[in-house]
Amino acid sequence: MSALPTGATIGIVGGGQLGRMLAMAAARLGYRTLVLEPEPGCPAAQVANRQITAAYDDPAALDELAGESAVVTYEFENVPVAAAEKLSGLVPVFPPARALEVAQDRLVEKTFLNDIGISTAIFRAVDSDAQLAEALREFGGAGILKTRRLGYDGKGQRVFRGGEATTGMFETMGGVPLILERFVPFEREVSVIAARGKDGSLVAYEPAENIHREGILRRSTVPAAIAPETAMAAREAAFAILSALDYVGVVGVEFFVLPDGGLLANEIAPRVHNSGHWTEAACAISQFEQHIRAVAGLPLGDASRHSDCVMENLIGDDVLKVPSLLAEPRLVLHLYGKAKARPGRKMGHFTRLSARS
Amino acid sequence: MSALPTGATIGIVGGGQLGRMLAMAAARLGYRTLVLEPEPGCPAAQVANRQITAAYDDPAALDELAGESAVVTYEFENVPVAAAEKLSGLVPVFPPARALEVAQDRLVEKTFLNDIGISTAIFRAVDSDAQLAEALREFGGAGILKTRRLGYDGKGQRVFRGGEATTGMFETMGGVPLILERFVPFEREVSVIAARGKDGSLVAYEPAENIHREGILRRSTVPAAIAPETAMAAREAAFAILSALDYVGVVGVEFFVLPDGGLLANEIAPRVHNSGHWTEAACAISQFEQHIRAVAGLPLGDASRHSDCVMENLIGDDVLKVPSLLAEPRLVLHLYGKAKARPGRKMGHFTRLSARS
Repeated sequence: MSALPTGATIGIVGGGQLGRMLAMAAARLGYRTLVLEPEPGCPAAQVANRQITAAYDDPAALDELAGESAVVTYEFENVPVAAAEKLSGLVPVFPPARALEVAQDRLVEKTFLNDIGISTAIFRAVDSDAQLAEALREFGGAGILKTRRLGYDGKGQRVFRGGEATTGMFETMGGVPLILERFVPFEREVSVIAARGKDGSLVAYEPAENIHREGILRRSTVPAAIAPETAMAAREAAFAILSALDYVGVVGVEFFVLPDGGLLANEIAPRVHNSGHWTEAACAISQFEQHIRAVAGLPLGDASRHSDCVMENLIGDDVLKVPSLLAEPRLVLHLYGKAKARPGRKMGHFTRLSARS
Repeated sequence: MSALPTGATIGIVGGGQLGRMLAMAAARLGYRTLVLEPEPGCPAAQVANRQITAAYDDPAALDELAGESAVVTYEFENVPVAAAEKLSGLVPVFPPARALEVAQDRLVEKTFLNDIGISTAIFRAVDSDAQLAEALREFGGAGILKTRRLGYDGKGQRVFRGGEATTGMFETMGGVPLILERFVPFEREVSVIAARGKDGSLVAYEPAENIHREGILRRSTVPAAIAPETAMAAREAAFAILSALDYVGVVGVEFFVLPDGGLLANEIAPRVHNSGHWTEAACAISQFEQHIRAVAGLPLGDASRHSDCVMENLIGDDVLKVPSLLAEPRLVLHLYGKAKARPGRKMGHFTRLSARS
């Protein structure tokens, strides 16, 4: 394992807030950053050495990114596979392309999880109205219909509670491959942020307990109100995913916690994750630094925390709360440098720290 | 007190590591940054929105900086006074020009401290060989001769222990105004990083105990091995300085601790300070964020710490230790993005965290 020398350039595909926090972490470790993002003056570019302002699949831009970077990583899982493959032929890319393939398709993802022994909600592929009707019958009429690809923050989803018409639904959902997931009677949602180094070493932060609203993460609380065995099982599942994918970097894995403490994996995010933003405020080494350490071939850092904490997202007009938030002691604020506070847009987050319970 | 709105630009004079860490703190609070620094691709510019590459006293550059910034601050105390005055006529500048005047001249500084009731080493102005000889006689032959202006990190200093010739010394020291300071039989050195907001509110971090070598800070340890009353006295002295200067921003004040626990103030740095770098790793709100909050008119943050810690500078070839440092758990590394590791050059620092004692 050879570590990236100080001063080397790390390419980042995607210029949002995750890229921004990755760029700052890279700078603190002495690396330069180059961001590929079509939006000029994007959040990441504001703290990066340079931006290539072009589409994620622009061939010349990808050549430029690969040519100037010693390693390339990404801040979102929907990097076009062709772009990732082109980059991988020119420069080391972490996490590996296989992780993108798995995470970009809910059917592939759940099948992968089940194949390595990790339980998920029961699911059926849906490619027609007839298949939908059949799967709903099997599930007692209820389930969540999702596009297999390009869904995030609750977009591209439809809930069935029983008795709804299925005719025309395949077209309504865009005529794209779908998946029907059976409802899970979960008690709470948790996630684990874990990392794997180039040498195969593994670390995990403690699970966070997450509250979503309208499909968007609102709040993460650490420690989660779960039994130690449940926390350990979540951590072991994350480690199994990392090892099975020969992964390098940080992953976020979301789980449903059942009433008996059992876990069903819900989603793999092959990147730093919103539910890990608390690590920046409550740990010596944040998920962002952990990711940079991994892709740079440095030793992974300690993932323990010095404080209990609650992280909340600032979405849209939530930013109006900033003045009062700043007046709170032991509150760590992080804004993303976005000019316009559109509804549903993540503008920043904050973490309230308290003494370890 | 009106707070700077999110997205406003903060101008920073000076593009070294302090400017770099200020720029990152400003970004986290949602501000944009514009750095004035003659060295292209300087450490601060790598994480700032933009750099004006020009001399600190370039009139057009100062106009540009003032024109694009809602407020201007600086990362070093030797900003040319004419430049600071020009800027102050165009845009709010914090800390105030008076703080620069005081900190730029050791004689003015010590006189100011004594005037507000803070003890210092005994000193004499020296503007000739004859004055030097006379002052040395008064001090029993021993003392430290320093240039009144532009000294830092031990440069521009000469130690007398008794019997040295004084003839020609005024010329040897550059023919500039000098100050002779009497030796202080100190037991240790401490510093306080404190801040004052636009509303006059005051906060202080706990004193750090500092080790210098060849006039350069090597290590800061928190907590310092001093009595609670000494810590309180240091804090009160820092607050008195801030209030007397009608200061806005972070200040670093260095003290000698005498065997009886008494304090002599040594130096005022009207800026974030190397001996406060530990706050980034051991506190929710770092000195850098504290400074940005102050100059932006935001409420000051909590200055308590969650951990004990030891910060060490990486000077010159010390950076070769980085691989082994990264392997240590609970060690927070920060490199400055400098390409060349020249002897005596500060390349980065690290903070070892441990549980609160």
